[in-house]
Amino acid sequence: MQDEDLAIGIDLGGTNTDFGIVDRSGKVLWRGGIKTKNHPEISSYLDELFLAMLPIIEHAGGVSRIKGIGVGAPNGNFYKGTIEHAPNLAWKGVIPMAQMMQDKFSLDVTLTNDANAAAIGEMVYGAAREMRDFILITLGTGVGSGIVANGSLIYGHDGFAGELGHTMIIPDGRYHPGTGLYGSLEMYASATGLTKTAIEMLQKKSDGTSLLNTYSTEELNSKIVYECAVKGDVLSKEVYSYTGKLLGMALANFAMATSPEAIILFGGLCKAGDMLFDPVRDSFEKHLLPLFRNKIKIIPSQLPDDDAAILGASSLVWDRHRQ
Amino acid sequence: MQDEDLAIGIDLGGTNTDFGIVDRSGKVLWRGGIKTKNHPEISSYLDELFLAMLPIIEHAGGVSRIKGIGVGAPNGNFYKGTIEHAPNLAWKGVIPMAQMMQDKFSLDVTLTNDANAAAIGEMVYGAAREMRDFILITLGTGVGSGIVANGSLIYGHDGFAGELGHTMIIPDGRYHPGTGLYGSLEMYASATGLTKTAIEMLQKKSDGTSLLNTYSTEELNSKIVYECAVKGDVLSKEVYSYTGKLLGMALANFAMATSPEAIILFGGLCKAGDMLFDPVRDSFEKHLLPLFRNKIKIIPSQLPDDDAAILGASSLVWDRHRQ
Repeated sequence: MQDEDLAIGIDLGGTNTDFGIVDRSGKVLWRGGIKTKNHPEISSYLDELFLAMLPIIEHAGGVSRIKGIGVGAPNGNFYKGTIEHAPNLAWKGVIPMAQMMQDKFSLDVTLTNDANAAAIGEMVYGAAREMRDFILITLGTGVGSGIVANGSLIYGHDGFAGELGHTMIIPDGRYHPGTGLYGSLEMYASATGLTKTAIEMLQKKSDGTSLLNTYSTEELNSKIVYECAVKGDVLSKEVYSYTGKLLGMALANFAMATSPEAIILFGGLCKAGDMLFDPVRDSFEKHLLPLFRNKIKIIPSQLPDDDAAILGASSLVWDRHRQ
Repeated sequence: MQDEDLAIGIDLGGTNTDFGIVDRSGKVLWRGGIKTKNHPEISSYLDELFLAMLPIIEHAGGVSRIKGIGVGAPNGNFYKGTIEHAPNLAWKGVIPMAQMMQDKFSLDVTLTNDANAAAIGEMVYGAAREMRDFILITLGTGVGSGIVANGSLIYGHDGFAGELGHTMIIPDGRYHPGTGLYGSLEMYASATGLTKTAIEMLQKKSDGTSLLNTYSTEELNSKIVYECAVKGDVLSKEVYSYTGKLLGMALANFAMATSPEAIILFGGLCKAGDMLFDPVRDSFEKHLLPLFRNKIKIIPSQLPDDDAAILGASSLVWDRHRQ
């Protein structure tokens, strides 16, 4: 029997499920995927997942080489191993996914939400390798987060900690139809929020010269705003400044709570680079208590884009056995 | 030699220093105090403190019965044992207070800020005895906090975590002259902030019938607002509603970060009881993601008012030896 030196990472999303076998250094040795959407029933989902994973497990030298399975899933609860009321999955209610996978694969399964998995991924393989205190913020369709303090991820009393995307940043601000809340960070600093800012600015400020005017409100998205900004479009750049300013304000609040060594930004919006990071850093420093200034880094993720979710999920396995 | 079953707690404030000898159950057996203000020099401060504490240490059975000293001090840094740039102390710069006391008393000294000490006090003797995840908020002249997650206080990478009072709750809101920040929680939910709200409401809303009109702006303070509210004064009660609403908003943000089992409110403002707690709880629930609703308690401190600071400081000794 060989050493258990490999981990399986599963990124369970509403549309796709991607998986990979990962070594301790964070190299994805084999990968694959199935369509989550094809399975209104969990049992058929698990059957297809099992069949799809068998060949790569055999390639890897069999189950005996694998230490365990880590799963990143929407509304994943670390303590209970459940997926609870995930709005973008077909399976309703509380799903005991970790137990179900454990029964299917005869391997230990650790499950949490995607942002928490990404945070542990940064700690095990990425930008937070030497850090005991940091915050990871995911800037994608939504805004997620994972908070690490004293070297451990904070799960909270119920397993649901780290929902910084839903904290209020503008009292009575934009309405979030998915949560019923007003003015939460997610409505400003996600791809959706950034697009909304672009539409609002076009309506309020535009003299008609912005490149964004060539698109209809329905067509506009964060990718278009990014491309126009790169071409030098003033209004598009202003959209990034505004987004960065609000995000920086929110990050200052988070920093004064747990005083992290760094805040790591992860996800699609980070592609904008300095166009986003510069206003974020400016606003961040301005909103900090002097005691915290010029000592907390705001840096991009060091997980490779394509494999980040699989790496994050697989890192749960190493983190579990570290504790 | 008897067991080391006692701890010394020192509450080092700008005006007074109070100290006590405390047993493991949280009973303050002997207490005393000196005037911090009388000592522009630290060496003479330590001399007087030593002389004042000697008799009670002897009463307690001598140094051999004492496990260590815990100190709660403004801008106290747990990792370094320093007091750093405390605005309300005569001693400027960075003071290696833990080391200086250790040299003077030949006892282990643990030091942190007052709010962190209060949080550990709740965990060791008070309302958080069975909790691994909670947040303590102190509502006094200022607003302080201590955050406990996974059973440990969060000190952050530099020892200064838990400054929730300085997080922004109203963008471009009230200016805080001490920090240079705008719209921070402390400007609304402290005794100072509550008084400011009363003055603003008197100027904007009052028809002259409020009991508060019998006081000048200079005379007004949180105690007067409280007394008028108890007498049924409508405007004074509105001041509490507004304060509670903003505090509840802020607490919802904090709760979505670390998902605590409870948020414990501590300090002068809590005397208002339901007049404060009711609007806080209403606003708190309203600003939470549905996932968090109806499961996080907002409760008052269980440390006795008079001894709370000494108990908090002494609890650092037991917490240190627990880890």
